[in-house]
Amino acid sequence: MEPLKEIPVLDKGFVRLVEAMGDDGAIVQAARVSYGEGTKTVREDAALIDYLMRHRHTSPFEMVEFKFHVKAPLFVVRQWFRHRTASVNEISGRYSVLKEEFYEPRAWRRQARRNKQGSEGEVADPEALALLQGVEGEAYRAYRALLERGIAREMARMVLPLNLYTEFYWKQDLHNLFHFLALRLAPEAQWEIRQYAEAIARLVKERVPLAWQSFEEHVLRGAHLSRTEL
Amino acid sequence: MEPLKEIPVLDKGFVRLVEAMGDDGAIVQAARVSYGEGTKTVREDAALIDYLMRHRHTSPFEMVEFKFHVKAPLFVVRQWFRHRTASVNEISGRYSVLKEEFYEPRAWRRQARRNKQGSEGEVADPEALALLQGVEGEAYRAYRALLERGIAREMARMVLPLNLYTEFYWKQDLHNLFHFLALRLAPEAQWEIRQYAEAIARLVKERVPLAWQSFEEHVLRGAHLSRTEL
Amino acid sequence: MEPLKEIPVLDKGFVRLVEAMGDDGAIVQAARVSYGEGTKTVREDAALIDYLMRHRHTSPFEMVEFKFHVKAPLFVVRQWFRHRTASVNEISGRYSVLKEEFYEPRAWRRQARRNKQGSEGEVADPEALALLQGVEGEAYRAYRALLERGIAREMARMVLPLNLYTEFYWKQDLHNLFHFLALRLAPEAQWEIRQYAEAIARLVKERVPLAWQSFEEHVLRGAHLSRTEL
Amino acid sequence: MEPLKEIPVLDKGFVRLVEAMGDDGAIVQAARVSYGEGTKTVREDAALIDYLMRHRHTSPFEMVEFKFHVKAPLFVVRQWFRHRTASVNEISGRYSVLKEEFYEPRAWRRQARRNKQGSEGEVADPEALALLQGVEGEAYRAYRALLERGIAREMARMVLPLNLYTEFYWKQDLHNLFHFLALRLAPEAQWEIRQYAEAIARLVKERVPLAWQSFEEHVLRGAHLSRTEL
Ligand SMILES: Cc1cc2nc3c(=O)[nH]c(=O)nc-3n(C[C@H](O)[C@H](O)[C@H](O)COP(=O)(O)OP(=O)(O)OC[C@H]3O[C@@H](n4cnc5c(N)ncnc54)[C@H](O)[C@@H]3O)c2cc1C
Ligand SMILES: Cc1cc2nc3c(=O)[nH]c(=O)nc-3n(C[C@H](O)[C@H](O)[C@H](O)COP(=O)(O)OP(=O)(O)OC[C@H]3O[C@@H](n4cnc5c(N)ncnc54)[C@H](O)[C@@H]3O)c2cc1C
Ligand SMILES: Cc1cc2nc3c(=O)[nH]c(=O)nc-3n(C[C@H](O)[C@H](O)[C@H](O)COP(=O)(O)OP(=O)(O)OC[C@H]3O[C@@H](n4cnc5c(N)ncnc54)[C@H](O)[C@@H]3O)c2cc1C
Ligand SMILES: Cc1cc2nc3c(=O)[nH]c(=O)nc-3n(C[C@H](O)[C@H](O)[C@H](O)COP(=O)(O)OP(=O)(O)OC[C@H]3O[C@@H](n4cnc5c(N)ncnc54)[C@H](O)[C@@H]3O)c2cc1C
Repeated sequence: MEPLKEIPVLDKGFVRLVEAMGDDGAIVQAARVSYGEGTKTVREDAALIDYLMRHRHTSPFEMVEFKFHVKAPLFVVRQWFRHRTASVNEISGRYSVLKEEFYEPRAWRRQARRNKQGSEGEVADPEALALLQGVEGEAYRAYRALLERGIAREMARMVLPLNLYTEFYWKQDLHNLFHFLALRLAPEAQWEIRQYAEAIARLVKERVPLAWQSFEEHVLRGAHLSRTEL
Repeated sequence: MEPLKEIPVLDKGFVRLVEAMGDDGAIVQAARVSYGEGTKTVREDAALIDYLMRHRHTSPFEMVEFKFHVKAPLFVVRQWFRHRTASVNEISGRYSVLKEEFYEPRAWRRQARRNKQGSEGEVADPEALALLQGVEGEAYRAYRALLERGIAREMARMVLPLNLYTEFYWKQDLHNLFHFLALRLAPEAQWEIRQYAEAIARLVKERVPLAWQSFEEHVLRGAHLSRTEL
Repeated sequence: MEPLKEIPVLDKGFVRLVEAMGDDGAIVQAARVSYGEGTKTVREDAALIDYLMRHRHTSPFEMVEFKFHVKAPLFVVRQWFRHRTASVNEISGRYSVLKEEFYEPRAWRRQARRNKQGSEGEVADPEALALLQGVEGEAYRAYRALLERGIAREMARMVLPLNLYTEFYWKQDLHNLFHFLALRLAPEAQWEIRQYAEAIARLVKERVPLAWQSFEEHVLRGAHLSRTEL
Repeated sequence: MEPLKEIPVLDKGFVRLVEAMGDDGAIVQAARVSYGEGTKTVREDAALIDYLMRHRHTSPFEMVEFKFHVKAPLFVVRQWFRHRTASVNEISGRYSVLKEEFYEPRAWRRQARRNKQGSEGEVADPEALALLQGVEGEAYRAYRALLERGIAREMARMVLPLNLYTEFYWKQDLHNLFHFLALRLAPEAQWEIRQYAEAIARLVKERVPLAWQSFEEHVLRGAHLSRTEL
């Protein structure tokens, strides 16, 4: 089977794996330096990785590195770049004329009743899309008009709304990638960034199947209990 | 003289010093741990700080910490949060209804002819402001309309443009603050973020006058020569 | 009651709180920026802090900062400085002549039978101490002899053993301090660094009692269950 | 020509390149995302890399990653691990019995007269080596004796001196690697860590020749002038 490379996300975005360094073997190799031991069987590798994950020995997971090329709307990227342990290069709206590409959701969600930060349900609301497209259109026309008047790109872009698409390179080690996924695959995360997290998860899983399995078992599907819940 | 606390920036923004830890004395104190020596005169403190700055002994400058409350437009904040060594808390557009406050520049700048990433000059262009205000108005009306239709705040905000104001707390140590200022006070930085950097510089200068003097002398007003320029 | 300032640790070491920025109120203040809300009662503050800790909203805890002065043996410091999110200034063995101060344990522990990385029990072994003191004495005499022959301090110190005491300043934010404590208060941590972690815990607890309570409830005394354990 | 892989350093140490991700092309690729442009000629790549280095656009250099396996004496590793932007896995003296391998310098250096933190000259001093070997021998005998008495490895190792060899994996991105090299290739750095920095430099240079050239030109062989020196 051909390895996955690029996964479409939302209506116009994508996540593309540019390159990676290391795999399950690299985690084991780094951990074994600590314990002064050589190579072992796959079964033992799986057990060691599981042990490391369960006991939060996170440093060996930092030894694997991923680099992605991502296209996503600005409001998603604003959430994404709050994760500070990655390296980033984004397209510059000061340098380039930004393209007329906006995220247009297929379905709308209601404000959640219980979680004040969340959303729920699905709303069939053709009006909502029309409102969004109205703003997009006017904003992009104003952008072009400002550029034509000679206004600097860095100023003209101020009129563009948060559903505009942008692109960036993103490099992250596996430990912090798992942390990103734990936060952004969670139901509290906004649905849109969750779609990106899921695409990344698929690419990561393929590259480090043993580490992924342990991550799923102990972190993603695990639970944290407080003293009084024990 | 009353110490500065809050400085207005742009048309509706500000930088406010919330609290700080340490001052010039804390830099000297940490450096003297390394050298196993006690307190000295102010003159000697100034000389030591200058020595540390000149020789890029940056760790003692990390011993001073600043916390600011900032109100700035989104496009400025997008540049700001690329600095990963700070701690941040920003108002949540998923949780709160965002206020109708937009940055409206007093003057417009042209696309620079030489620096493709920059701007230059000042343009008296009443049309430009009208275009901007047109988009703002329509965008905010759409935002309100979407909210009234019950659409989740996290989705409705997608229509809002990049000149919308937001607020955040920002905590940073002095070494990385100087690094931020070196990059964001530079003429290549966009004029708007430079205004914030200048406000922050004023607050910092007041708190650590000796460190500021050395930073200005060796970094801000210094220059880097390549081998072939020497 | 006078606030704690300096706590003796091991036979000759200490942890001293140099300064701190922020307290429980600062956590709440930063979190409320996100939610766009003002001050509340202490009861509501406690509930908010507990909510943040339970849901791993870690960024508001980064808003509190601690600075300690520590004296500890080299083998402890080697473990300590693997925590990379802190700022450090340590006494320089290249610059200063190091003092003849060595950690001499009051009790010795056996190699653990089950945990290959641990120790257990207590051994009354007067011979062990004699062996240690023998090496210390000879090492420090060699150190002095090398210095007297004009050998550079940076080379002479090579003969000194890992139980030598050193001193450093250590600055860390509360989120990462809790992470340090979670790892270094755990039974798997070496007994000696645990003593330092406990001293730091006492100083931290006094400063941020509400955050400490939540940390204890949800992290220190909580437990993590894997999918198959649920 | 076979690419270099492992370089012996000091009397018993080494630096080995385990793997790397990206090369000069990866720097250019990430930078071009920012500028929205595609591939170019090698000549243009070299010019772009040089531009990025000269203007301290450091983020594209973070897109290249190196992983090394290193064997070095403890006093060198203590300096090394102060660089916090790397990922590390070191052999555990709690888990394994440490080998009897000590750094024995071929030549000794005097305390520098001007730089209180440095050394200078070369001293032919057979006595110095004898003193060092005396301590090593006694320390290692004590270490073995303690282990034989059943004392835990984590305690027994306290007697071992700072010239003991250890091993670790070290992963670092190119921007921070250059920063490490700028500090550790400098004449102020201790001679021993400089030998490691030089070995690493050779391995890096081979992988990213264009970036290395710019680093050498603008950073390593460049100079910083203060305002009053201009
Ligand atoms: C004039 C100007 C133009 C710019 N144009 C663009 C552009 O077109 N596209 C674009 O994407 N960006 C652009 N940037 C942003 C730039 O690339 C940096 O992201 C930003 O300036 C932050 O700088 P920094 O990384 O040095 O600071 P910080 O993130 O605060 O980092 C300071 C130092 O800490 C270390 N560090 C911190 N976090 C990490 C980490 N996760 N990994 C490794 N090391 C770390 C590094 O040594 C770093 O140098 C521009 C910046 C300026 C000033
Ligand atoms: C559902 C959800 C809701 C959110 N709501 C809000 C909100 O309302 N307002 C808001 O401001 N943010 C919000 N966030 C963002 C959140 O506060 C974090 O900024 C973001 O999730 C990144 O997480 P992180 O800090 O753990 O990751 P990273 O930045 O990748 O850091 C990982 C770890 O590295 C260490 N670290 C890295 N950089 C630093 C540094 N500079 N200083 C100290 N330690 C560092 C810390 O130990 C940190 O835990 C939300 C996030 C989620 C998932
Ligand atoms: C010749 C020489 C003499 C020295 N003498 C002494 C001495 O006497 N005493 C002593 O204690 N040290 C000494 N040092 C060590 C020095 O203080 C630094 O700790 C070390 O060089 C690592 O440098 P760095 O912090 O720039 O690198 P890194 O830790 O790799 O950091 C690179 C950059 O990333 C950012 N960064 C990374 N982590 C953090 C963090 N946790 N918080 C904030 N910003 C972060 C900063 O911008 C930093 O500049 C000496 C170093 C040299 C080269
Ligand atoms: C009981 C015990 C046994 C141990 N045994 C060994 C051993 O045998 N061998 C060994 O080598 N170590 C060992 N360690 C050390 C361990 O691997 C960690 O290095 C150490 O505990 C620091 O933890 P940290 O990385 O979570 O903390 P910090 O370095 O403070 O980092 C906190 C978080 O910040 C982020 N972060 C900070 N800096 C970086 C960076 N440069 N790159 C990426 N992310 C970053 C990560 O998200 C990280 O989780 C042991 C630790 C313990 C507690």
